Order: sequence, then C-alpha cells, then structure tokens
Amino acid sequence: MRIDGLQYANWSEEIFRQMREGAVDAIHVTIAYHESFRETVLNFERWNRWFETHPDLILKGLTAADIDRARRSGRTAIFFGFQNPSPIEDDIGLVEILHSLGARFMQLSYNNQSLLATGCYEAEDPGLTRMGKAVIREMNRVGLVIDMSHSAERSTLEAAEWSDRPITITHANPSAWHPARRNKSDRVLRAVTDNGGMIGFSLYPHHLRDGNNCTLASFCEMVARAADDYGIDHLGIGSDLCQDQPDSVVEWMRVGRWTKEIDYGEGSAAAPGFPPMPPWFRDNRDFGQIEAGLAVVGMTRDEVAAVMGGNWYRFFGENFGPAR
Amino acid sequence: MRIDGLQYANWSEEIFRQMREGAVDAIHVTIAYHESFRETVLNFERWNRWFETHPDLILKGLTAADIDRARRSGRTAIFFGFQNPSPIEDDIGLVEILHSLGARFMQLSYNNQSLLATGCYEAEDPGLTRMGKAVIREMNRVGLVIDMSHSAERSTLEAAEWSDRPITITHANPSAWHPARRNKSDRVLRAVTDNGGMIGFSLYPHHLRDGNNCTLASFCEMVARAADDYGIDHLGIGSDLCQDQPDSVVEWMRVGRWTKEIDYGEGSAAAPGFPPMPPWFRDNRDFGQIEAGLAVVGMTRDEVAAVMGGNWYRFFGENFGPAR
Repeated sequence: MRIDGLQYANWSEEIFRQMREGAVDAIHVTIAYHESFRETVLNFERWNRWFETHPDLILKGLTAADIDRARRSGRTAIFFGFQNPSPIEDDIGLVEILHSLGARFMQLSYNNQSLLATGCYEAEDPGLTRMGKAVIREMNRVGLVIDMSHSAERSTLEAAEWSDRPITITHANPSAWHPARRNKSDRVLRAVTDNGGMIGFSLYPHHLRDGNNCTLASFCEMVARAADDYGIDHLGIGSDLCQDQPDSVVEWMRVGRWTKEIDYGEGSAAAPGFPPMPPWFRDNRDFGQIEAGLAVVGMTRDEVAAVMGGNWYRFFGENFGPAR
Repeated sequence: MRIDGLQYANWSEEIFRQMREGAVDAIHVTIAYHESFRETVLNFERWNRWFETHPDLILKGLTAADIDRARRSGRTAIFFGFQNPSPIEDDIGLVEILHSLGARFMQLSYNNQSLLATGCYEAEDPGLTRMGKAVIREMNRVGLVIDMSHSAERSTLEAAEWSDRPITITHANPSAWHPARRNKSDRVLRAVTDNGGMIGFSLYPHHLRDGNNCTLASFCEMVARAADDYGIDHLGIGSDLCQDQPDSVVEWMRVGRWTKEIDYGEGSAAAPGFPPMPPWFRDNRDFGQIEAGLAVVGMTRDEVAAVMGGNWYRFFGENFGPAR
C-alpha cells in the first residue's frame, strides 16, 4: 500500500495517470492555503468536477474504507486538507460543515499567527489561543485531524497536549538531520508520536539535507533513525510534492493576502521559486525508489510497508470520524 | 410509519418532544427561503448544534436508511430542503456541495421568478430558464429532489418533462378541491405523478377548503379522491406546519429582501399573519387524527400506511443519491 501524507500539485489528467503508474492508493491533498470559506468551497467544487471527469482514475476519500475501494478498482483515493485554518474563518460551526464536505486535516497555522495558533515564522509564540483550544475540541469531536507542519514549537507542544486525539505533522523532517526552520525538534517529534500521532517525511528540497542534492540513502537513513527514536508505527511519507506549479503559486503560499511585501519563506531573493526535486523523486511514479531505498538501509519488509502506507491507513481508519 | 413532507417550525426541544409523542419518524425541514449560500450554511450549523444537544430525540437524515435507524432508536430523522434556489446563488457547483451537506429537496422558485424557473405569483411564466435546465440535470445526477410547490404552472410542467427523475410538490392540494393560487391543477398533478413523482397534502389553512374551518372529513375525502385520480403510490402528507413562528417570519417568507413594500401573499392586510391551524391538526402530536380520518373515509389499512409515510419512505430511498 502506498499513501502520501501531503501533495499540492497543479492537478491534471497526466498527474492522475502518474499516480496510477506509481501505484499510489491514497493522497492527502491540500485544497486551501489562505482561502476563505467560500473560496475553499470553490476548490471542493473543482475537485467534484475532476471526480466526475476521471471516475476511472480517482475517487473522493472520506474514510479508510475508500482506500480499500480505490485499491479494488485501481484508482487513487483523494483526501482533503487545509494548510491554514482560514476556511473556518471565525466560525467554529464551519469545522463540522467542512468535515461534512470531506476535509480530514487542518493545520492550525501556516507560518504566521492565526486565530488558533502561532506559525513557525513568527518571532513570538504565545501558544494556543482561546479559539484554538475550542476548535481543537471540535476537531476532536468530528474527526478532523490536527496538522502542525507549519506551526511554531510551543503551539505544537500545546496542541499535542490539549488534543484528546493524536495529531500530525504531515510534511516535515527532523531538525537533527537538517536544521531548517520548517523541520521539527526532537521534543516536538516526541510529543506528537507519544500521543499516537504521525510524522510524514517530506521530500521538498528545502526540508532535505543538501537540498535536492540529498541522496536517497541519506533520506532513507534519516527515516530508519527516526524509526529507532520514535517507533516505526508513527512514520509515513508526506512528500509535499508541488508538481507542475508555476512559481507564482509558491509566492501565493508565502504571501497570500497578508502583506504587500515579498516574503521568500524558505527560498531567497536569488532562488524565489519552487526548487527542483531530487532526481530520485520526481513525481508520483517514484515511490518505488523510496520503497527500495528503505530496504537497502536495512528496514524489514513489514517496516517498509508500514512507512509507505500501512501506518497512514491505520491512522486514517482511527481518526476520520467521531472517536469510538 | 409517519413521514411529513414539509415543516418550518420555530424549532425547540418542546417541538422535538412533540414529534416523538406523535411518533413522527421523519420530516423534511425547510432551512432556506431567501438565504444566500453562506446564510444557508449557518442554518446547517444551527441544526448541527441541535443534533449535538438532542441526540436522544433527533438525528440527521441523509438516506432512507436513516429513517430505519431513527425508528429503531425512537428518534425523528430530519431531512433538509430549500424553498428557493437562493442557496446555490449563480453557481451550479453548489448543487453537489449542498447535497454533500445534506440538502435533499430544492424548490426551483418561490412565488417569484428565480434564476431557474417562475414562481406562482408572477404575471408571466416563460418556463424553465437555461440555468434551470442545467441545474435540473445536476440535481438529477446527485440526487437532489426537485420541488415545485411554489412554482408556476408552465415551469412545473416543463420541470416534470425535463427532469430524468421524479419531481415533487411537497406541500399543496388540488385546486379542484380548493382553488387557491398555491394549489395545483389537475394537469400539474397528473404531470408530476405520471413521472413517478409525489404530492404532499398541505394542512396550511390557506390551502384548505374553508381555511381552518375545514373539517377532517373534507380533508380526508380530498385525499381519497386524489388516490382515485392519481394513484395511491404518489401521495403523502406535507403539512407545511410552521409551529411557534412569530408573524415576522411569514412576512420574511413573502417579502425576503426582494421588495421594500409589503406583500401579503396568501394573507391580506386584514389578516397578515400566520393563520391558526385547524383544531384537528395543531402540531406533530396530531398525525394520528389524520390516520384515523383516512380510515373513516374508507381507505384500507395499507392505503393509509402508504399516505402517512410508506410512499415518502420509498421515494426517499430511490431519489436521495445518484440514480441506480
């Protein structure tokens, strides 16, 4: 089984076909960065049209059972998530509404301070807000998974503590391996995994040691080390693949509508765009390379299967609805 | 089984308890008259809070199986509908979005001209619009039922013809029995039922012969006569009960935001408010009176069961999702 914990591609039939070539059973797809509720609904509508146009390639994922259905029929199940809480605006009632529409992950903040929590680019991190605590309870109730990938340290630790259910970092790597601002401290990784949460390892070059010169072996050794440190059951892939996107999109991710200035985020004035991917992971066709690489660094067949999709499958099954 | 094809009460725990006293298994509840998409979402949110607060009395209905679930657990299943297409605004993609949120009925117009069809108070009825035809196809695709209760004659006949699936008049009576503007001609009733559609008989006094002085016997004889004319399988109740609403609400129904004048609709300057209900149908506790009344006018036990809920149950089962 192959499940990717995060992608944000410029979707097309070609990419949907590559998912099938790469035997990808399910993907958590971002459908909002800075969008309002109504704009997010337009993104759901766009996906509804893709499901209607390509019923032979993709289907809408709501529960883990939809992954089984996708596998039986040779398709990829698409699960939705937001990288920012902007879709719920200031209205806690929208948590359940968006869950009804199919949202399954929501980041509490994206780089900046949000109404709920602090992002990883803020100078100060005062932790969860009053609304943040209320919204976590509501997300717990309906089964909308908390994702802290772009959040700051204290907010993340408090979310792991305050949440009654496991939380995630869908796309990041350990700072110990590569000390990027978006990568996560041992303390954060431990807080997330200690509560049953999941870490998705990122293939976005800014999160990789040596950027896109990172070797497959180095990436796979990092995964094997994390399995020793945090337990194999808590690890998956969250590729952060942004295939075929123009550079205007990474600028939108970073700048949204919150500033009139340019913010380069993980990039720089010299390299403001999307970085090229490492040669061993160009797109959805290359999950087999990672699978092979994990075996080469000594992981067992069961361990490789857990990281490539088994763990996400179990996690989806336990966390996408009301608690049992 | 008891199913009501339309209510718009000022909902409260007291009314939910009366539903249980009256053994009402399911109700189609109006959640939009003139509301925009966002305002309609707020109405879904309000119901989510009621489902959360009263899990022992009500549950959200999405399919006919939810009626079985409600009966097994002694609750009432609430199904949602709109009396106007205002919730989809000018965006056909909102048909599927609102169906995902739980909408199961939508009127194509409410008294006035809409983007889709003409209402029964317009002087001219040019029939279905271009968007109306497109939206009917989309409603057919996802399983959102067309309701023409407040639409004009030609628009209704064209909708019955253009729709690939049965349509409804959830709350009205035959004009031949009481010639009110909101009641329906033999031609309309035949067009709807010939295509497998449903008529819900209204208990709103303006739709009754002699208003709230209408006798139970007269109402039940009208039903029995309609069974002879249109077939027992196509008939149900659509009480149009607007319990505990202040008169400002009937003004909102009639006037919305479309005029600065007062429009009395079926009322008058002398009697602008909600009319009192007939004494034999005060609220949800009185469905048993109608059940008894139908037997008195000579309907068989099976016929009474069909009208009181069996027909709506079958119709819900066949029309609330993609066509088989």
